[in-house]
Amino acid sequence: MIRVGDTHVLCTASLEPRVPPFLKGAGLGWVTAEYGMLPRSTSSRMRREATAGKQGGRTVEIQRLIGRSLRAGVDRVALGERQITVDCDVIQADGGTRCAAITGGWVALRLAVNKLIKAGDILSDPLVDPVAAVSCGIYAGQPVLDLDYPEDSEAGVDGNFIMTGSKQLIEVQMSAEGATYNRDQMNQLMDLAEKGVSELVSAQKAATNA
Amino acid sequence: MIRVGDTHVLCTASLEPRVPPFLKGAGLGWVTAEYGMLPRSTSSRMRREATAGKQGGRTVEIQRLIGRSLRAGVDRVALGERQITVDCDVIQADGGTRCAAITGGWVALRLAVNKLIKAGDILSDPLVDPVAAVSCGIYAGQPVLDLDYPEDSEAGVDGNFIMTGSKQLIEVQMSAEGATYNRDQMNQLMDLAEKGVSELVSAQKAATNA
Amino acid sequence: MIRVGDTHVLCTASLEPRVPPFLKGAGLGWVTAEYGMLPRSTSSRMRREATAGKQGGRTVEIQRLIGRSLRAGVDRVALGERQITVDCDVIQADGGTRCAAITGGWVALRLAVNKLIKAGDILSDPLVDPVAAVSCGIYAGQPVLDLDYPEDSEAGVDGNFIMTGSKQLIEVQMSAEGATYNRDQMNQLMDLAEKGVSELVSAQKAATNA
Amino acid sequence: MIRVGDTHVLCTASLEPRVPPFLKGAGLGWVTAEYGMLPRSTSSRMRREATAGKQGGRTVEIQRLIGRSLRAGVDRVALGERQITVDCDVIQADGGTRCAAITGGWVALRLAVNKLIKAGDILSDPLVDPVAAVSCGIYAGQPVLDLDYPEDSEAGVDGNFIMTGSKQLIEVQMSAEGATYNRDQMNQLMDLAEKGVSELVSAQKAATNA
Amino acid sequence: MIRVGDTHVLCTASLEPRVPPFLKGAGLGWVTAEYGMLPRSTSSRMRREATAGKQGGRTVEIQRLIGRSLRAGVDRVALGERQITVDCDVIQADGGTRCAAITGGWVALRLAVNKLIKAGDILSDPLVDPVAAVSCGIYAGQPVLDLDYPEDSEAGVDGNFIMTGSKQLIEVQMSAEGATYNRDQMNQLMDLAEKGVSELVSAQKAATNA
Amino acid sequence: MIRVGDTHVLCTASLEPRVPPFLKGAGLGWVTAEYGMLPRSTSSRMRREATAGKQGGRTVEIQRLIGRSLRAGVDRVALGERQITVDCDVIQADGGTRCAAITGGWVALRLAVNKLIKAGDILSDPLVDPVAAVSCGIYAGQPVLDLDYPEDSEAGVDGNFIMTGSKQLIEVQMSAEGATYNRDQMNQLMDLAEKGVSELVSAQKAATNA
Repeated sequence: MIRVGDTHVLCTASLEPRVPPFLKGAGLGWVTAEYGMLPRSTSSRMRREATAGKQGGRTVEIQRLIGRSLRAGVDRVALGERQITVDCDVIQADGGTRCAAITGGWVALRLAVNKLIKAGDILSDPLVDPVAAVSCGIYAGQPVLDLDYPEDSEAGVDGNFIMTGSKQLIEVQMSAEGATYNRDQMNQLMDLAEKGVSELVSAQKAATNA
Repeated sequence: MIRVGDTHVLCTASLEPRVPPFLKGAGLGWVTAEYGMLPRSTSSRMRREATAGKQGGRTVEIQRLIGRSLRAGVDRVALGERQITVDCDVIQADGGTRCAAITGGWVALRLAVNKLIKAGDILSDPLVDPVAAVSCGIYAGQPVLDLDYPEDSEAGVDGNFIMTGSKQLIEVQMSAEGATYNRDQMNQLMDLAEKGVSELVSAQKAATNA
Repeated sequence: MIRVGDTHVLCTASLEPRVPPFLKGAGLGWVTAEYGMLPRSTSSRMRREATAGKQGGRTVEIQRLIGRSLRAGVDRVALGERQITVDCDVIQADGGTRCAAITGGWVALRLAVNKLIKAGDILSDPLVDPVAAVSCGIYAGQPVLDLDYPEDSEAGVDGNFIMTGSKQLIEVQMSAEGATYNRDQMNQLMDLAEKGVSELVSAQKAATNA
Repeated sequence: MIRVGDTHVLCTASLEPRVPPFLKGAGLGWVTAEYGMLPRSTSSRMRREATAGKQGGRTVEIQRLIGRSLRAGVDRVALGERQITVDCDVIQADGGTRCAAITGGWVALRLAVNKLIKAGDILSDPLVDPVAAVSCGIYAGQPVLDLDYPEDSEAGVDGNFIMTGSKQLIEVQMSAEGATYNRDQMNQLMDLAEKGVSELVSAQKAATNA
Repeated sequence: MIRVGDTHVLCTASLEPRVPPFLKGAGLGWVTAEYGMLPRSTSSRMRREATAGKQGGRTVEIQRLIGRSLRAGVDRVALGERQITVDCDVIQADGGTRCAAITGGWVALRLAVNKLIKAGDILSDPLVDPVAAVSCGIYAGQPVLDLDYPEDSEAGVDGNFIMTGSKQLIEVQMSAEGATYNRDQMNQLMDLAEKGVSELVSAQKAATNA
Repeated sequence: MIRVGDTHVLCTASLEPRVPPFLKGAGLGWVTAEYGMLPRSTSSRMRREATAGKQGGRTVEIQRLIGRSLRAGVDRVALGERQITVDCDVIQADGGTRCAAITGGWVALRLAVNKLIKAGDILSDPLVDPVAAVSCGIYAGQPVLDLDYPEDSEAGVDGNFIMTGSKQLIEVQMSAEGATYNRDQMNQLMDLAEKGVSELVSAQKAATNA
């Protein structure tokens, strides 16, 4: 359970001995993610996706992002032919759920891999570098980190920076809705993001006794 | 959040000012329920229903049961033309999730109705009698209350008793899978159920300061 | 074709030489059921489920009940690794369709198994005890058997008793919609049900020349 | 219930006081049809369409054909702004179900309209000409009427002629699967079809006392 | 890309080395087709079928027709165990898209098979006879070939003739919507169709250098 | 029809007089987009999304991106309460289809708005700044613009820069799959992107005679 402000996300990692069909026999592991929100995680009730009959576009986009981000910090040869599914379920939401899911998802992944190492199933550590994410945006003309929900919904520009513990970039997404931004603002946001991620990585280490 | 043994269910109640189409203008309220399980609430990961593209038969059956049971304790005229949706999401499961959902759902309903009464939106209390549920079964030939998961999956006969605080029956379900039972066993189970429900009702009262 | 009052249900049994995946190699047979209603089986036309794109919750609930009930009277070892699918299609409905489907479904099952025995494919009879069902309810304060549709839709409490020829219980379902009932009423209903089932079992024997 | 050889189709007509959105206020009636097969109407069990989650292409094609054919014999101004839905459910199938459905569907439509006329709801008869259909094909090089199932599945060329009582053509469909036919054969089939339809129209008149 | 008047259809043929399951090991090839319309191929925008969640009944009907028609001109033994999928995507529509798709689809098929023959993968030519199609109808009482969209939508009777280069019939479809036609009109249409198809076959030969 | 290398995308703009429900009465216009690929736009045939029964996650992600990007260059007050739907259908694909769709989609939008202005339906031009997009990536360690398909599928890092004619940023997406990148590389890519977009904007102006 990761808590970033009033955003609470329950992250779990489940191991399966087999990999998806497209990887069979390739000697590589796979890390994938699924994302969901409880109907009452938001202040007004959302429709349950299982009732709607499918995952919405936003959900699909987010869970693909989580999976891709976590894989960037994984040595898939070292992981071996096994799949780890990281489930991120938002219990309470106040902005930045996808970043909280990535940061918390890495903790769940770390703990699951620790177990595999302890059991002797994996010899060299496949988690080469921690992965964490911060949301940010331009709110009232000012670059800001960790938008909460009221800021997030008013910000004309918002995005996410996903980075490793060694400040390598994994994913930069900076979208404007009915607005634009310039390159200076982009650079200021990146400075903020680097600082934010390094704090999160410290917290991840604390949580996993690393 | 109700915890019965190792079963934890998050129950919330959401108010809407309108009722479903079939009740429009009838002057009656409606209470409905939705039920879900997090993919990792069970010891081995379950497939997410939103991914499967629909709610399974079991889910639909359970959420209809929860809604029907809660309505049995509601004076729908007193509630007025408003709908309360009770969401029951299983965070961790160890048998008896539907009973925990009903018992906890009533607590969420009670708290939501208390707010409406305090705000003066409702004049007379529509929750005429508490509603609680116990699971039971015949395990190794013996009638047992509150089966946990290993017992539940081995019991040839299991079911649920849903009752009000004044020992009125709302629903009795007693199913055999590849087995049968006789009327004596049925009666012993009902004795056990009456005792179990009265303990739950005390706990509900404590949780809602009634 | 079973006719109970104005309720007519066409029941057929289809044999397949293989069992579902979860039973492969277990040496056990399987009996399953599907249920449907013709759009004009009711007095006002219902929407066709194939058009709606899925089976409704009620249909799923009923066909699971039929399958589970019939299996309770089957020695699955004696049946051997084969599956029998019982299709119950309601041609005309006037209350109690699920009970008619179970009672008539057992007749279809009996006839199908008789053929297998005659052909020498099965050595010992897997149908150890007939299975029949009665609907009942509390109508105008009075316990009543075999509710027809007008009674059924006004009864605050209704349910089904599914039993074997030797009076063993398979399933008891007694639901209240916006009402409750007490234990005395429950006991009276069980007395009525025992009588009703024994009449149905006689009719089943007559229909199958047993 | 129409029986053509071993093909039995249950046809019903249901009246609704409103027309589909595209006809609102146009002063015209609408006749539409739905078609289904019971899973065991064929000698080996078919999958239920409600389970498959949608109507197959064949079903959609057939029910559009039935609706279009029946409408060709209807004066939609005389019918007025009401919709009649004709349900054709195949209880037992042995070839030619779509033709049986059209011929029987017209009988159901005739009876429903008779009621409306008797009740004074309709002043002039909207059913201007009876509609009936015959299946035919080229089997073993020979034009044949009313193919039964074994013939139908071996015929390289088969089709349907849908005509009115006054020998006007409504629909001609003549398909080859992996074969072709010439214009002479086409003409012979039309001669046969005219004869077949006039026999069916006599039977329709007998069934509706016209 | 076939252009018939203002109707433009992009036809492609894709080869796969395997056949559908029902043909495995039978030594026979398969030709199938899929059909689609771009949302803006019509003068007012149509809803995209991928958004609607399924192919409409009309699409399914048309693509089955295209596949069946093309197969009628194919020697499936000579083709060998391979499948060719012909995709027909309407870029711009002005009536008669299904006929254009069949005529153009045969060209795509011819070119694909030519490649296989050139590569030595097929020894004897499986395309025994060209396949082409014309739309026709009765417009203002007069039999007409190649209805454009305004004619098509007003014609009470319209249809398609699908024929081979040697004037064998593959499929005749002549439907009336709210109208009927007589046998003389049918014969006049067939005369027109024979003329139209022979012109198309010349154009096909020109396009494939045969 | 925009052609960027071997990528060809057909872009059309369709005007509707109404806006989506959430904008009713707000005095604001809406621009939305849909995206599709013909099954044979790629070198090996893709499955048609209408057949699969839904738009894939990638399609949904792309069409949301196109819509969001185009809206960033639109003055929605000046557009007034009307919706323009931009359809982008990929006829042939060789990398960078989403960028080609945005750049070409803006041209379709420009032409549609020009018509509205000419007709006097819009008084001040709502297209305040052209919108164009370039794909880029890190291929063999080197920042590269306009990856074609073979480069794209091997690049560990790829993304898109969406900008206006005045070099304002609309969206930056830079994803790593199994790799990471540093801030210097990010900056080099942005330099390349600015140059690429200004060339595209010139081409857009040429195509729309602005």
